[in-house]
Amino acid sequence: MFQQSNRPPASQPPQKLYEGKAKILYTTDDPLVLLSHFKDDATAFNAQKRGRIEGKGTINCRISAALFELLEANGVPTHFIDCPEAGQMRVRAVAIVPIEVVVRNIAAGSLCRQTGIPAGTVIPDPLVEYYYKNDDLGDPLLTRDRLFLMNLATPQQLDRMHSLALQINRVLQEFFTRCNITLVDFKLEFGCDRRDGSLLLADEISPDTCRLWDSDRADPQARILDKDRFRHDLGNIEAAYEQVQARVLAQFAGPPSDGNGTN
Amino acid sequence: MFQQSNRPPASQPPQKLYEGKAKILYTTDDPLVLLSHFKDDATAFNAQKRGRIEGKGTINCRISAALFELLEANGVPTHFIDCPEAGQMRVRAVAIVPIEVVVRNIAAGSLCRQTGIPAGTVIPDPLVEYYYKNDDLGDPLLTRDRLFLMNLATPQQLDRMHSLALQINRVLQEFFTRCNITLVDFKLEFGCDRRDGSLLLADEISPDTCRLWDSDRADPQARILDKDRFRHDLGNIEAAYEQVQARVLAQFAGPPSDGNGTN
Repeated sequence: MFQQSNRPPASQPPQKLYEGKAKILYTTDDPLVLLSHFKDDATAFNAQKRGRIEGKGTINCRISAALFELLEANGVPTHFIDCPEAGQMRVRAVAIVPIEVVVRNIAAGSLCRQTGIPAGTVIPDPLVEYYYKNDDLGDPLLTRDRLFLMNLATPQQLDRMHSLALQINRVLQEFFTRCNITLVDFKLEFGCDRRDGSLLLADEISPDTCRLWDSDRADPQARILDKDRFRHDLGNIEAAYEQVQARVLAQFAGPPSDGNGTN
Repeated sequence: MFQQSNRPPASQPPQKLYEGKAKILYTTDDPLVLLSHFKDDATAFNAQKRGRIEGKGTINCRISAALFELLEANGVPTHFIDCPEAGQMRVRAVAIVPIEVVVRNIAAGSLCRQTGIPAGTVIPDPLVEYYYKNDDLGDPLLTRDRLFLMNLATPQQLDRMHSLALQINRVLQEFFTRCNITLVDFKLEFGCDRRDGSLLLADEISPDTCRLWDSDRADPQARILDKDRFRHDLGNIEAAYEQVQARVLAQFAGPPSDGNGTN
């Protein structure tokens, strides 16, 4: 009836678990580990606008990996494991919390459209906002009360996400300042670790999910180094993503040699 | 140079101070008192839909007066003074706080459209929500943080409005239950009293600003006794407003006679 074998169990072929707008998640042999494939597809305005940004998948994967490592080193637990090859990231399996956590240092985007606050207004105490991750409903803004009424998170989870979001903002602001980039705002997603239920930072951190301004430029369009170039047809999209990648990776490259072989 | 007179100062003709969608505010001889004229004009969906409900101004003024008196008797300070004639209300002059405070006991309207919560869902802890009173922006939902960022109220004012809103909900729920009406949700506006800056309940409380369901009827359309009949073209609008007025005023009419002259 049963055949025994000393061979290790045969590898399961990877299965597509979920395809989102910017990434595809595949299973791996380890049920606690997934493989995230970063796509070049770009969408905006709740996928009403669609396009491609050549090389984006590889760039966003590399930037995200660097920033996840930076955050882990600063005490923020993330789903990141490693990148087996360009554009692919191994991550811990999580149950995604269906909330997009947005941190805002400078007013931009939907905040300005919805409130009339002028774009570019500096926000003295960074704003941590919650949006319902639901394309059919257009990712609406949530109050804490709505979020609890909808059972999207427990008060403990929300408090944890709030404090992690502010901690992440401090680490990223300091880091991007060294890159000569202004961190305007960014979106985070969290998930519950399949191992123990603890919250991990998930998804990605990239020019798709951050607003990043070149601190060297004052021109309100020329300074944009993020998906707003795609959203508003500003051109030079690939160059902007490459610029962010170059500045981020340069921070991890160690001090430049002085060219004569000595330190 | 100066002429003295023992005559009282001549009355100033009333001036139109402000015309809103449902009311016109006029000055009076007393700078601390305004006259509010309730209109029959009806608007919905941020004034994209316009019409008239015959007799609405008189009915809403009478219902509001009765409910303001009820609330005052229960410790809620309001702007209400009296009604010099049908459809007209004398009110204390206030500086309106540009926030619409909405209390929800049952899910309906924009809450359902924005969150996907099914209409009719009972909300165990009444939801107190804030919307920016701004037609150009479509009265957007506000978080506490946005509201403070926009300097629309102080934390003390917001806490006071929040606790008043819940107190008003308790009084009105109990009252409407006696009217055999279910109080689904309602909108409040507050203003700062010109005399001392204290918060007063202002605007109106009427079938224009509440969702009210006839508790005797189960049919989800037939039971509607409020502006949703106008919003969704359900007909019998005037009859619904008259029904609410009759049931509200009956509560203030004293016990009915038993018909044989004794008590």
